[in-house]
Amino acid sequence: MGAFHEGHFSLMRKANRECDYLVVSLFVNPLQFDIACDFDRYPRDTVRDQALAESHGVDLLFTPAPYEIVPSDIDTVVSVPSLSRRWEGASRPDHFQGVATIVTKLFQIVRPDVAYFGQKDYQQVAVIQQLARDLHFDLKIRVMPTIREKDGLAKSSRNQLLSPDDRAAATVLYRALHHAKQSVKGGERDCRILQKKVALILKKERRADLDYVAFCDPKTLEPVSLVTGKTVILLAVRMGSIRLIDNLVIR
Amino acid sequence: MGAFHEGHFSLMRKANRECDYLVVSLFVNPLQFDIACDFDRYPRDTVRDQALAESHGVDLLFTPAPYEIVPSDIDTVVSVPSLSRRWEGASRPDHFQGVATIVTKLFQIVRPDVAYFGQKDYQQVAVIQQLARDLHFDLKIRVMPTIREKDGLAKSSRNQLLSPDDRAAATVLYRALHHAKQSVKGGERDCRILQKKVALILKKERRADLDYVAFCDPKTLEPVSLVTGKTVILLAVRMGSIRLIDNLVIR
Repeated sequence: MGAFHEGHFSLMRKANRECDYLVVSLFVNPLQFDIACDFDRYPRDTVRDQALAESHGVDLLFTPAPYEIVPSDIDTVVSVPSLSRRWEGASRPDHFQGVATIVTKLFQIVRPDVAYFGQKDYQQVAVIQQLARDLHFDLKIRVMPTIREKDGLAKSSRNQLLSPDDRAAATVLYRALHHAKQSVKGGERDCRILQKKVALILKKERRADLDYVAFCDPKTLEPVSLVTGKTVILLAVRMGSIRLIDNLVIR
Repeated sequence: MGAFHEGHFSLMRKANRECDYLVVSLFVNPLQFDIACDFDRYPRDTVRDQALAESHGVDLLFTPAPYEIVPSDIDTVVSVPSLSRRWEGASRPDHFQGVATIVTKLFQIVRPDVAYFGQKDYQQVAVIQQLARDLHFDLKIRVMPTIREKDGLAKSSRNQLLSPDDRAAATVLYRALHHAKQSVKGGERDCRILQKKVALILKKERRADLDYVAFCDPKTLEPVSLVTGKTVILLAVRMGSIRLIDNLVIR
C-alpha cells in the first residue's frame, strides 16, 4: 500500500536475497477501507516510494490504477469468513474481504513463487495463508518479523498520522504486550488475568483507548482461556482518530 | 458433475478438436447443493463415466475425493453477488457461491488454457465468466449450445430422475420458450405479456409448476421490460420434486 518504511524494506531485502526477480505492488486498496476518509488520508507519495523501491533492488514496481484492479463492473468477492470474523474483522466489517479479493487478484496477475508479508498484520497474514491454501495458489508465503522503532512502536504507515504527543504515548502498545509476555514468563497462565493486566497498562495512558486485547491460538485466531502452548497476543488501540495494531507471539 | 450425457460429450468433442490435452473434472460439488438430499440423490456412476470419457478422447479424468477439494478446515468463499442474486440464486441461496468457489479451485489446480461450459446453465456460465474476468484467470471460456432430446427437452443429468409421465410432460419447458420466441418474431415486445404467455402454457401442463420465467439482459441478467436487442429467456420449472431449467437467447 506504499508509504514504504523499514517494515517494507525488510521484506524487499529478504525477497531480493531469496528470489531472482522481485515485484512489489504499490496499490492503496479501496476495498479494504470501511471509512472513505481513512482511504483518502492514507499516506501516499509515489515518487518517494519509487526511488526507495529502486534503491532496495526492486525489479518491478507494480502500480496499477484503481480502475484496473477495481473496475466499475467488478462483482467477485473472495472472503475467508471464520478467520475474518473476530478482532480486526469485528472492528472493520468488510476489511478482510477487501484484502482477500485484492490479494487474490494481485497473486493472479503477478503469479509469484514466493510472497512476503509482515507479521505486524497478523490476522491479515493468517487470512492470506488460508486463502492461498484453500484456492490452491501455487506459491509459498513467507512471514517476516515486525520491525519496530527504537522505543518499541511497530513501524506502520499510520504512525506518521499521529500527533507528537500521541506518537510518544503510542509506545504503550509494545509496553503492554511486553508486560503480558513477562507475566507469562513469570508463571501467569490465565488469559483473563493477563488481559486485565494489559488493560490496566492501557488505562494508565490516558491518550490511548483500548479496542481489544486477545490471547489466541496462532493458527485459528480463536481465543484461548489458558496459555498452554504457542499463543499470539493481538492488540488494537485507538490514539485519537488513529487506530494502531500490534501483536506478540509467546511460547 | 458426472452422469455424462450428450451435452457433456459435445463439450468433450469440441475441446478435443481445439486443444492438445483434455482434462475433464468429475466431481459432484457438495457446496452447490442447498438441500442435502438433492446432493445424495444426484446421479453417480463413475465406472460408466470413466468408460465414456475414455471413448470421447479425454486425456485425464480428474476425480478428486470430496475431502481433497472441500477439506474440513476450508474457510475461503468465492462469490459473485450481483449476478448470483436473482433467478437460480433466489431459489437456491448458496448455490452460485458453491459453484464459484469450486470452479475457482478447479481452475487453479488444472490451470486450463480454455474451459468449456454448456449454455444450458446460463446463469452459471455468466457467473463463471465474471469471476474469471474479475480474478484475472488466464484462460478463455467457451460456451457451447444446449443439446436437446428429439422432443426439445434440454439434456440434463436430472432428467433420469423424472417419472415417465413427468418426463413426457417436461417438453413443456422448450415448448414455452419456443412459443415466446415465436411471439417476439411475431412482433410482441412487452416482456410482461410474453411472461404471461409462457405462464399460460405452463399452466396447461398440470404436472409442471412454474418457478420463474424472466426476460433478461444476456450479460447482466437484469430483467428487461421490452425486447429491444439480444435477450435471454430464463425458465425454471418444478416437475414433482425435480427442478428443471432451460433458456433461449433471442435476438
